[in-house]
Amino acid sequence: MLQEFVSSPHPAPGPEAGSRLSRRKAQLAGQLQRIKAARLPVLVLFEGWGGAGKGRLIGRAIQQIDPRFFKVYSMPAPTAEERRKPFLWRYFNVIPEADKFVFLDSGWLDETVRARQEGDLEGEEYAARLESINTFERQLTAGGYLLIKIFLQISRKEQKRRLGKLAGGKDTAWRVDGYDAWQAKHYKTCFAAFDEALEATNTAYAPWHIVDAEQKKPAELAVYTLLTDAIETALATRPGLGLIAQRQFPLRPMPLLEDVALDKTLTDKEYDARLKELQAQLGELHNRLYRKKVPVVIGYEGWDAAGKGGNIKRLTAALDPRGYEVIPIASPEPHELARHYLWRFWRALPKTGHITIFDRTWYGRVMVERLEGFCSEEDWKRAYNEINEFEKELADWGAVVLKFWVQIDKDTQLARFTERQNTPEKRWKITKEDWRNREKWDAYEQAVNEMLQKTSTVNAPWHIIESVDKKYARVKALGIVVEALERALK
Amino acid sequence: MLQEFVSSPHPAPGPEAGSRLSRRKAQLAGQLQRIKAARLPVLVLFEGWGGAGKGRLIGRAIQQIDPRFFKVYSMPAPTAEERRKPFLWRYFNVIPEADKFVFLDSGWLDETVRARQEGDLEGEEYAARLESINTFERQLTAGGYLLIKIFLQISRKEQKRRLGKLAGGKDTAWRVDGYDAWQAKHYKTCFAAFDEALEATNTAYAPWHIVDAEQKKPAELAVYTLLTDAIETALATRPGLGLIAQRQFPLRPMPLLEDVALDKTLTDKEYDARLKELQAQLGELHNRLYRKKVPVVIGYEGWDAAGKGGNIKRLTAALDPRGYEVIPIASPEPHELARHYLWRFWRALPKTGHITIFDRTWYGRVMVERLEGFCSEEDWKRAYNEINEFEKELADWGAVVLKFWVQIDKDTQLARFTERQNTPEKRWKITKEDWRNREKWDAYEQAVNEMLQKTSTVNAPWHIIESVDKKYARVKALGIVVEALERALK
Repeated sequence: MLQEFVSSPHPAPGPEAGSRLSRRKAQLAGQLQRIKAARLPVLVLFEGWGGAGKGRLIGRAIQQIDPRFFKVYSMPAPTAEERRKPFLWRYFNVIPEADKFVFLDSGWLDETVRARQEGDLEGEEYAARLESINTFERQLTAGGYLLIKIFLQISRKEQKRRLGKLAGGKDTAWRVDGYDAWQAKHYKTCFAAFDEALEATNTAYAPWHIVDAEQKKPAELAVYTLLTDAIETALATRPGLGLIAQRQFPLRPMPLLEDVALDKTLTDKEYDARLKELQAQLGELHNRLYRKKVPVVIGYEGWDAAGKGGNIKRLTAALDPRGYEVIPIASPEPHELARHYLWRFWRALPKTGHITIFDRTWYGRVMVERLEGFCSEEDWKRAYNEINEFEKELADWGAVVLKFWVQIDKDTQLARFTERQNTPEKRWKITKEDWRNREKWDAYEQAVNEMLQKTSTVNAPWHIIESVDKKYARVKALGIVVEALERALK
Repeated sequence: MLQEFVSSPHPAPGPEAGSRLSRRKAQLAGQLQRIKAARLPVLVLFEGWGGAGKGRLIGRAIQQIDPRFFKVYSMPAPTAEERRKPFLWRYFNVIPEADKFVFLDSGWLDETVRARQEGDLEGEEYAARLESINTFERQLTAGGYLLIKIFLQISRKEQKRRLGKLAGGKDTAWRVDGYDAWQAKHYKTCFAAFDEALEATNTAYAPWHIVDAEQKKPAELAVYTLLTDAIETALATRPGLGLIAQRQFPLRPMPLLEDVALDKTLTDKEYDARLKELQAQLGELHNRLYRKKVPVVIGYEGWDAAGKGGNIKRLTAALDPRGYEVIPIASPEPHELARHYLWRFWRALPKTGHITIFDRTWYGRVMVERLEGFCSEEDWKRAYNEINEFEKELADWGAVVLKFWVQIDKDTQLARFTERQNTPEKRWKITKEDWRNREKWDAYEQAVNEMLQKTSTVNAPWHIIESVDKKYARVKALGIVVEALERALK
């Protein structure tokens, strides 16, 4: 992709360039209100050579935008803390809210090319990384985000000149880091590496825009032209993502809920013995996964009053409290609603060596949000694949991913609701909404069945936990966790 | 404080100890629902010697609590990233929501004693640190938090024995770090340092509880006894903070708003020249403060339509977008409402070398929250002092703190409201709430006057920006920023 730019001449800007820039600036200013009305989130990624002027051009681009409506993030090499999360974590973290801009000064392209050149990313891992990037960009675009990717191209000679000038200035020398200097010395190698990564991530839904940044004014005009054109198109056609071929995930066969036998029980004696044994094993495994830095993500879903809380408690009782976190998922707050639905789950991921237990999960998208109409049909239908992709990211990162559906029948739920209602200390656990949801049991059952069929992947399979006998359920879930951790730590 | 414990014998637990522990456990389980009903946030700080059993005792304490209602944070030495924020930042970050528990495994006591022993904290700085801690604890307590501080005491002999055992185990050796080993070797010095810091932070509102942790079972009983008694007291008496002597801050005299002359203007020519000059100076200063790692906090308050947005824009136009952030403050979301009102401002602080501009600020507490009854009279009256303390923390940290009140008269506001209403592109800027607020002008003016009188401290003075002529206002604000930064960078 870059080659064309090298061979093209850099024409001096014509006399009309100034007025064209003014027109584009006015156009951007005029688009802001429509962006706000359409609640369009805009993510602008600036990549390019060291010294190409990313910071300066971002500074120009934001001049027309009210400071309350954008944020700029500089994304240098990840910190030690960030390296303990999946690669995409820090990018997912900073995606804009609806009707806001985010500008990134370098991002996933730079991080990937750099890691590759430092020898940290080779072969299959490199290929997987490129696929992660494409998935991430597609998910954002499909979720209504406008993603504008700009690569600033300068020649070897120009880069040398600029870095030399920066390094020479007392107040600017700190801007040239070791990597910039290395890049300048190995321009050809870097050129090839950039070119390859640009090609591999140049998709129909998130294409690269190469900007000739050799001369400052024309580069500014090019950036404004790109921004205004991209915004215009997005406003005219949004939601603009057509049908996109989805990744195929090998799925495990799952039974229908109605075929799950719920008569499994344990005696008190069996329960006490098994619970003690499994908890001891789990405590031991927790220590080992901490040392081996294996992250663990466990999701609980199930009917109201199925016994999720008690089940989680038996699990956490065996864990060192400094090494796990339970995240209860309620309906999203405004700042969560204003972003991609997976955002709040990305943010809550454990660091390596830690366990995060989600009490309800991202599967709300294909259950409550589907049935209550909180998202469009297109949204929840697309979500099965997006969720499989999300969980694949976690598995690729090295995480153990476990998902439990805690199952009871309708009569058992009624008995438990009634008991809660009649017991003063338990009354807070039951709300009108629980009764309302119960009325939609059949619709939920259908949605749950579809979810289990479509998202039980090899990397992140569903486990149905029969919970009419809560003791049986606790021991079963614990056993699955222990077995999965043992396998991962082998 | 510790001395008494050393001399006291460690009696073997009596036969009734087991049943006492069971009773306390049942008591804690029973308290949870009342904590929920009272929306009482509980912060439990475990401090003590390395090897004293903080982790184990936290593990015991949470056994009675539903995992959705507590979080445990391990607080090791601060990371490089955390060191770029004020000392209290990472603690303010993790305070619990209303009706939730947070357990801290080590905290501000350990960090302070350790820094002192490493020679990083001496003389006045050490004294200031202790005062920060006391202020923090008082603010939380006054804000309705129950803060329980526990120090686990063990003898030199016992510590040696425990660390030796840990270091010898294949799966436990990693738990003993260099500091633990150092502590064991310098037990006497550490004893004195702990003792002094405990004394200095042992206040009526947040007293220390020293727990003899020499024997495991009695220590567990002691912790349960402390927790249940403290919770019982808090539930019975909350809000339990009586009158507390407040810190005195030297204040700058401020005029009443009615006495501020609003006829100041600039010609277009003066404006263009001054703006250009000041922005160039500011850009230069931004570079220097980045290198010298000086943090800057700028707060904007003012009447609706006073011109805050345009004023901020002239400021940010001169800044490198990678080095500042504008934080618009709207009404708090549920997760913000559920915590101390200063929490969301603490979280948004810049790191050293960066600038954060707040578009509306923590002063909402003594304006809109006061006038709309969103907090009690006691709350907002206490807030003047709490805010002065907050800003003192920032100044002590080395930050430049600037506060602007953007002032117009009532007629000017009407003219601007009307213009907004009549201009289609500006209509989104005006809401019914703006008109409603306008009706309360006099009450607001009184509140603003009181605020200006009570919070214009030497470290963080208020600046009134006359903004009937917006150009004059922009140049004045810019000039104040430039001057303050020049002073700080000298």
